[in-house]
Amino acid sequence: MSKELTTRAEDYSQWYNDLVLKSGLADHSSVRGCMVIKPYGFALWENMRDQLDKMFKETGHVNAYFPLFVPKSLFEAEEKNAEGFAKECAIVTHYRLKADPNNKGKLMVDPDAKLEEELIIRPTSEAIIWNTYKGWIQSYRDLPILINQWANVVRWEMRTRLFLRTAEFLWQEGHTAHATKQEAVEETERMLDVYADFVEEYMAVPVIKGIKTPNERFAGAEETYCIEAMMQDGKALQAGTSHFLGQNFAKAFDVKFSDKNNTLDYVWATSWGVSTRLIGALIMAHSDDQGLIMPPKIAPIQVVIVPVYKGEESKAVIDEKAQGIINELKALGIRVKYDNNDNSRPGWKFAEYELKGVPVRIALGLRDIENNVVELARRDTKEKKSQSMDGLAAYVNQLLADIQQQMYDKAVAFQTEHTTACDSWDEFVKLLDEKGGFVSAHWDGTAETEEKIKEQTKATIRCIPLNNVQESGSCILTGKPSTQRVLFARAY
Amino acid sequence: MSKELTTRAEDYSQWYNDLVLKSGLADHSSVRGCMVIKPYGFALWENMRDQLDKMFKETGHVNAYFPLFVPKSLFEAEEKNAEGFAKECAIVTHYRLKADPNNKGKLMVDPDAKLEEELIIRPTSEAIIWNTYKGWIQSYRDLPILINQWANVVRWEMRTRLFLRTAEFLWQEGHTAHATKQEAVEETERMLDVYADFVEEYMAVPVIKGIKTPNERFAGAEETYCIEAMMQDGKALQAGTSHFLGQNFAKAFDVKFSDKNNTLDYVWATSWGVSTRLIGALIMAHSDDQGLIMPPKIAPIQVVIVPVYKGEESKAVIDEKAQGIINELKALGIRVKYDNNDNSRPGWKFAEYELKGVPVRIALGLRDIENNVVELARRDTKEKKSQSMDGLAAYVNQLLADIQQQMYDKAVAFQTEHTTACDSWDEFVKLLDEKGGFVSAHWDGTAETEEKIKEQTKATIRCIPLNNVQESGSCILTGKPSTQRVLFARAY
Repeated sequence: MSKELTTRAEDYSQWYNDLVLKSGLADHSSVRGCMVIKPYGFALWENMRDQLDKMFKETGHVNAYFPLFVPKSLFEAEEKNAEGFAKECAIVTHYRLKADPNNKGKLMVDPDAKLEEELIIRPTSEAIIWNTYKGWIQSYRDLPILINQWANVVRWEMRTRLFLRTAEFLWQEGHTAHATKQEAVEETERMLDVYADFVEEYMAVPVIKGIKTPNERFAGAEETYCIEAMMQDGKALQAGTSHFLGQNFAKAFDVKFSDKNNTLDYVWATSWGVSTRLIGALIMAHSDDQGLIMPPKIAPIQVVIVPVYKGEESKAVIDEKAQGIINELKALGIRVKYDNNDNSRPGWKFAEYELKGVPVRIALGLRDIENNVVELARRDTKEKKSQSMDGLAAYVNQLLADIQQQMYDKAVAFQTEHTTACDSWDEFVKLLDEKGGFVSAHWDGTAETEEKIKEQTKATIRCIPLNNVQESGSCILTGKPSTQRVLFARAY
Repeated sequence: MSKELTTRAEDYSQWYNDLVLKSGLADHSSVRGCMVIKPYGFALWENMRDQLDKMFKETGHVNAYFPLFVPKSLFEAEEKNAEGFAKECAIVTHYRLKADPNNKGKLMVDPDAKLEEELIIRPTSEAIIWNTYKGWIQSYRDLPILINQWANVVRWEMRTRLFLRTAEFLWQEGHTAHATKQEAVEETERMLDVYADFVEEYMAVPVIKGIKTPNERFAGAEETYCIEAMMQDGKALQAGTSHFLGQNFAKAFDVKFSDKNNTLDYVWATSWGVSTRLIGALIMAHSDDQGLIMPPKIAPIQVVIVPVYKGEESKAVIDEKAQGIINELKALGIRVKYDNNDNSRPGWKFAEYELKGVPVRIALGLRDIENNVVELARRDTKEKKSQSMDGLAAYVNQLLADIQQQMYDKAVAFQTEHTTACDSWDEFVKLLDEKGGFVSAHWDGTAETEEKIKEQTKATIRCIPLNNVQESGSCILTGKPSTQRVLFARAY
């Protein structure tokens, strides 16, 4: 397969798809809408997962595991939630195959093995979890429950794209139970902060924290908080959500607790999740026409060393020198790969690791060793320089930190440049068509207007930013009075 | 719920079930045969998983993720494999629910959303993975592929037991592809060794390494290697398997590679897996009538500190002293929990952590502090002693290592005691009925005899041990000539 990518200018969508496939992050599978996460992509996911898991545990959460299946009667118990997901459910109806009598060597579904009650493959686990919590919660002493689950979920989407929207995806879902509304709201906000911190600090992607309009809320939530990120094509991407569920699920599953005064009340709930979709955000926020650009903190490979040699003798010398550098880098906890594979030339390798977005490349030849230097190349800026071997590991360590910071700064500048306040409908339409990005505009607060704007421009209200400035103005579409601006954008 | 367990002598099976539920490892769910892994059980699984993952990576493997679903046409491609799993498959036939017109607020499967091809929920992933490998392998340069996956799988078992046999379970499955038969066989054996090392060194459970008879092979394998462990009730438990798959899957999915001479050949395969079933083995190998006994190396909590105080003032003094001990233990990497929850008394806590199998308990009262000692209790031997606070952390660290070793030694002694050579049928039957354990006996090597022995005694051939002694003898049932003994046992 050619490693050449479609450029962003030619076809942004094709560029994205090329990049995911050719960099070895993921592959299509034989199952409609399901992807294979390849080792390089999975190593990235592991780094993201491990850091998030650490942050969840630091905020008092523990992991558990609940069934993949939700019996239909439980699934439909919280009606809004059920309604929201009903149209995209994979449903298990049978539990056995048998030999097909009309088709030698083939199997068929055994009609005698029909389930009495159909099982839904979890699109999200509130139903199965709250049905379980019912058995765990009697008293205020049993609260709070602060549980997270790493799992696969299935949503039968009609139009899928690698990482961004797949029928099966990997995610984590936190499901917490609390004695008071205030505690639950605090938890919802705490986890939004954890997500924002993770995406900004580790993925180097700035986000806007906000709340969704009622229209865009999670099915079954009282309030949905979100973080929204801006991609290079000017479209927004919802990077994570944290839901205050009120007592909706407690009521649907009859989960009550007795407080210190022995009074019974329904339990308060939150849920929150991020998924492999974040990898899509990472790709589209940072990469260029030559390939991925990985933020050092989560890059599967932070430094690659490529030897440049002619003949076996120089190879031995370079291998030995390289091993010394590797040891020094590893001692600082740096993830380093030495690629001395004989099957490909240095130039091919340079292009390959550029495609894979490895933050720092070190090339090492005999002449470099004579001069006590290496050739150091940064993936993000493509700068190349000769660097002394003295103190190399410490230099590289600092360079990785600098790259992380500069990638973030660059993304912040892009987001700022692509956030525009706007007060006229014509300009609003023009901005969305020509410049893209977030458009900050007044809205009259009705679902009807929100829907009309979406129909006419394909832009949705991404969020009402937290701590939003309150100012009076006129709705961008209807001219009706408004008390604040909200963020519109076309979105993934 | 009462924390009292059924004793092993009363009802071993009930004891096991009580123990899993009351110690907080797992819970039943509303889905037939599926369990909820509770936070304490999941923390144990995380420790096991993380160690195994490290060992897989040290032996050159990388992780990836393949779809949950296997289209029926792929599932049936390797006929023996398909036949082996056909009777226990959960099958997705539809992808949408709709409002039930006859039942307000309820949903029904939308008959218009029937899949053209049914999807099998993976009972194991050879089919979907080898269908993917077909696109990844052209030349010997693409080999070996050494991939592991951590995933959930579903096997619709009719009789289920927590951890030991559940419809859905968590596992890892390695799937490797090689250019030569020899390489694949070496990989199969290498991973068997990894499993044996893990189970013995970390779980403190000795195992017998061996190969399965053709009858007991994995469906689609040329050879199945296994590790077999002995439980306290004298029944064996298969703790892990590693399969040499020959070229069966490569042929079924037409996966060929060109070697250095440009000759095409089918690729050689292995697969290997262990699952949450290992937790069942851990429980049954070590626990007693008071509860779990966790091997320190994988115990979620290695040391629990319980303060014993009267009144707020002594609490402050004890809390402070405890914090010092905690810091010292943590500095040595020891997982320690301080339980100063006011809602329960020390005696209740002692019983609770005994039930949970925490290896070392430290009790700390005012008088202890005056005397510069703590009360130290071992879970495995139930020994209690007063121990000086000077050098306490180092002492505890060594104690944890001793406990790990002694638990292993005890299990080895039990296994040795419960492995009996036997040369007469009457004794064979009596041994299985009265003493249990492994019975080492001659077998004529036919599937027919193996089947008859199973019918008459419920014992199966657990394995033909690796490096088995070759000696001539007579089959325990038929008296026909035999060249070696094999290990029989009743098994989980």
